Amino acid sequence: MLQSQLFTRTRREAPKDEVSKNAELLVRAGFVHKEMAGVYSYLPLGLRVLNKITQVVREEINAIGGQEVVMTALQDPELWQKTGRWDDAVVDNWFKTKLKNDTELGLGLTHEEEITAIMTEHITSYRDLPVYAYQFQTKFRNEARAKSGIMRGREFLMKDLYSFNANQEDLDAFYEKAKAAYHKIYDRLGLGDRTYLTFAAGGIFSKYSHEFQTVSEAGEDTIYVSKERGIAINEEVYTDEVLSDLGLAKADLVEKKSIEVGNIFKLGTKFSEPLGLSYLDEKGEKHPVVMGSYGIGISRLMGTVVEALSDEKGMVWPKSIAPMVVHVVELGRDKNEQVHSEAKALHDRLEKQGIEILLDDRSLSAGEKFADSDLIGIPYRVVVSERTLQSGTLELKDRATGETDMLTEAELVNLCANA
Amino acid sequence: MLQSQLFTRTRREAPKDEVSKNAELLVRAGFVHKEMAGVYSYLPLGLRVLNKITQVVREEINAIGGQEVVMTALQDPELWQKTGRWDDAVVDNWFKTKLKNDTELGLGLTHEEEITAIMTEHITSYRDLPVYAYQFQTKFRNEARAKSGIMRGREFLMKDLYSFNANQEDLDAFYEKAKAAYHKIYDRLGLGDRTYLTFAAGGIFSKYSHEFQTVSEAGEDTIYVSKERGIAINEEVYTDEVLSDLGLAKADLVEKKSIEVGNIFKLGTKFSEPLGLSYLDEKGEKHPVVMGSYGIGISRLMGTVVEALSDEKGMVWPKSIAPMVVHVVELGRDKNEQVHSEAKALHDRLEKQGIEILLDDRSLSAGEKFADSDLIGIPYRVVVSERTLQSGTLELKDRATGETDMLTEAELVNLCANA
Repeated sequence: MLQSQLFTRTRREAPKDEVSKNAELLVRAGFVHKEMAGVYSYLPLGLRVLNKITQVVREEINAIGGQEVVMTALQDPELWQKTGRWDDAVVDNWFKTKLKNDTELGLGLTHEEEITAIMTEHITSYRDLPVYAYQFQTKFRNEARAKSGIMRGREFLMKDLYSFNANQEDLDAFYEKAKAAYHKIYDRLGLGDRTYLTFAAGGIFSKYSHEFQTVSEAGEDTIYVSKERGIAINEEVYTDEVLSDLGLAKADLVEKKSIEVGNIFKLGTKFSEPLGLSYLDEKGEKHPVVMGSYGIGISRLMGTVVEALSDEKGMVWPKSIAPMVVHVVELGRDKNEQVHSEAKALHDRLEKQGIEILLDDRSLSAGEKFADSDLIGIPYRVVVSERTLQSGTLELKDRATGETDMLTEAELVNLCANA
Repeated sequence: MLQSQLFTRTRREAPKDEVSKNAELLVRAGFVHKEMAGVYSYLPLGLRVLNKITQVVREEINAIGGQEVVMTALQDPELWQKTGRWDDAVVDNWFKTKLKNDTELGLGLTHEEEITAIMTEHITSYRDLPVYAYQFQTKFRNEARAKSGIMRGREFLMKDLYSFNANQEDLDAFYEKAKAAYHKIYDRLGLGDRTYLTFAAGGIFSKYSHEFQTVSEAGEDTIYVSKERGIAINEEVYTDEVLSDLGLAKADLVEKKSIEVGNIFKLGTKFSEPLGLSYLDEKGEKHPVVMGSYGIGISRLMGTVVEALSDEKGMVWPKSIAPMVVHVVELGRDKNEQVHSEAKALHDRLEKQGIEILLDDRSLSAGEKFADSDLIGIPYRVVVSERTLQSGTLELKDRATGETDMLTEAELVNLCANA
């Protein structure tokens, strides 16, 4: 893609109405547009990142047997009344609206009720189990305050997976698979080394639920990390009993601020009983289906990557989710027309090989172009100038490490193809 | 994919609460789930079709220079007050909701206001033009009645493209490109032969707008078709003046019911003036940006394909958007275990070659399996049975034409790869 044709522009100055680093950088780089607090549009480069995170999550959830669906934002109160979650005194962040005939509707903040109702039409026998269904869908949550950029949205993209098993044992086995899939996701997004399986408050059906927490000063949560064991405890359950359950002592743990980047729950029959989701076993006996739910905020993950991996010059995208792999910056096109024609030819050749490339073909100074390149944070920056044309090599800079290198086009292709 | 693992099941009986053919068939085949009138969830097979339609549209809009974004559902009244469209007396199908602090918000029913506001941050000079930005995004429209299945939703997926040009001439040129792209989209979806560019009421900035109307008895619109010229006139502008403008006589035209599957508008400066979107020309003079908007309902297109191309046995998907290309039906696995092992091996080989396949490996009668296969509407049905194992060939049936053929696996791969 030619940067001269990309409609977004970068900004030097930080937007006045943002206090979070992720929103500041994403707005400055033209990745997102703020519609209102906690509500962001995704512009071309930002959408590319969001879609890549989605694809990483999709691959890992498909790998554990997930079947993809898309449910609705508009929610019928009837289902939620059955589980007691329609009441604003129980769930305090509903957005509600009305049909023309004055029927009240909700905007979905999670989808346990809807997916359970759907499954009553498809599950009746033990032969129909297990089922694992998930979606990428826009959630609405009426947060009183929303000042964490895209990390805590009033409208945001979430992956929510729901599991349906015949019994607790099968749920437990799938729950462990989901845990492992989540770890793979954070690893692929470059957050693996700072993301901990964290013990948090459970519910009726299990002593604990589990969160995945990424250590970051921007986090709203406090956790106690055991580096050695690779786990953490949320401060909400940081008690002697829990420490003893986990075989940990206070001296082993370090307090950290962190961002919740996923959570998984054993729901048991909390939803299947009131909504009538049951199955007949081999003997014809009826049982409620045993459920679990597994969430990951996709837009929050994108914000977390910005918080965790940026530096003072701008964003640093891991290759797995970068908007493009290589940012070619041409220098001196106004003095030497050949610079642009060679850079454009390189762009076309790389694009033809399926390499995602952004070519900065704008008439700006080297300083302005390098500052924009650092801000946007594409993993490899390659300079094409009169000097590189003469030497027949390209000048590469790795955004993450700052290391530079001279290399041939074939070497660049090889590097990008393995990215 | 193995059908025994697909969580959705088919139904023989039509759902009692559906009057439209598209919803009846899509619900029976397990492609969608009705949440409430005009609000449908997409289940695995339905989502595959929806995603494929999206991809066809994306490719054609990218080909005319579109840059993809995703805007928000939650809408700030401020922008809409500037264009006069916040008032329920002006726009009568808003869903509205409220923040905790009682600020009223809207749920986006279209996005001219938001995209124009975004562009004020990115367009200031003639050098920044043209810009073509589009999205696939969920729209909310508070329809008083919603009885056309997924064709008229209260919540539905739409592609909306917005063009930003320096002057009317450039808008006119892009508008013609968009027309051509739309025709390509309908052609690729198998609707080209029954979809007409239709003259409809214009606005302040142009005498006509244009709709694309697909002839169907299920349509809510009435159009007058000139088959010879390949165009039509919406009854709302079916006047002597319009006939004369288009050089048509009443005798040339045939009245038809039709479904609106797209519309394109020249907006001129209707939005750019009140929202302050302007640019400086080469002489430093300021002008409002000249806009156009171009909509296609993605879920409506899916419903239209069902209405237009189904038969009495079920749905008939064009290869371009079918959930899978080939439906392998194994018969007699309970009598001869080799039938299943051979069918499964075929499934694995085809999947490895990137061919999308559904294998009906359920223990059901041939009659039940064929009825489901016809209902689901995958283009090629292939039978694997004791008889085909003995002959070393596969039995193919084309869902659209009903033609049957015996062919080898290599021939099947070839057929599917070219689908």
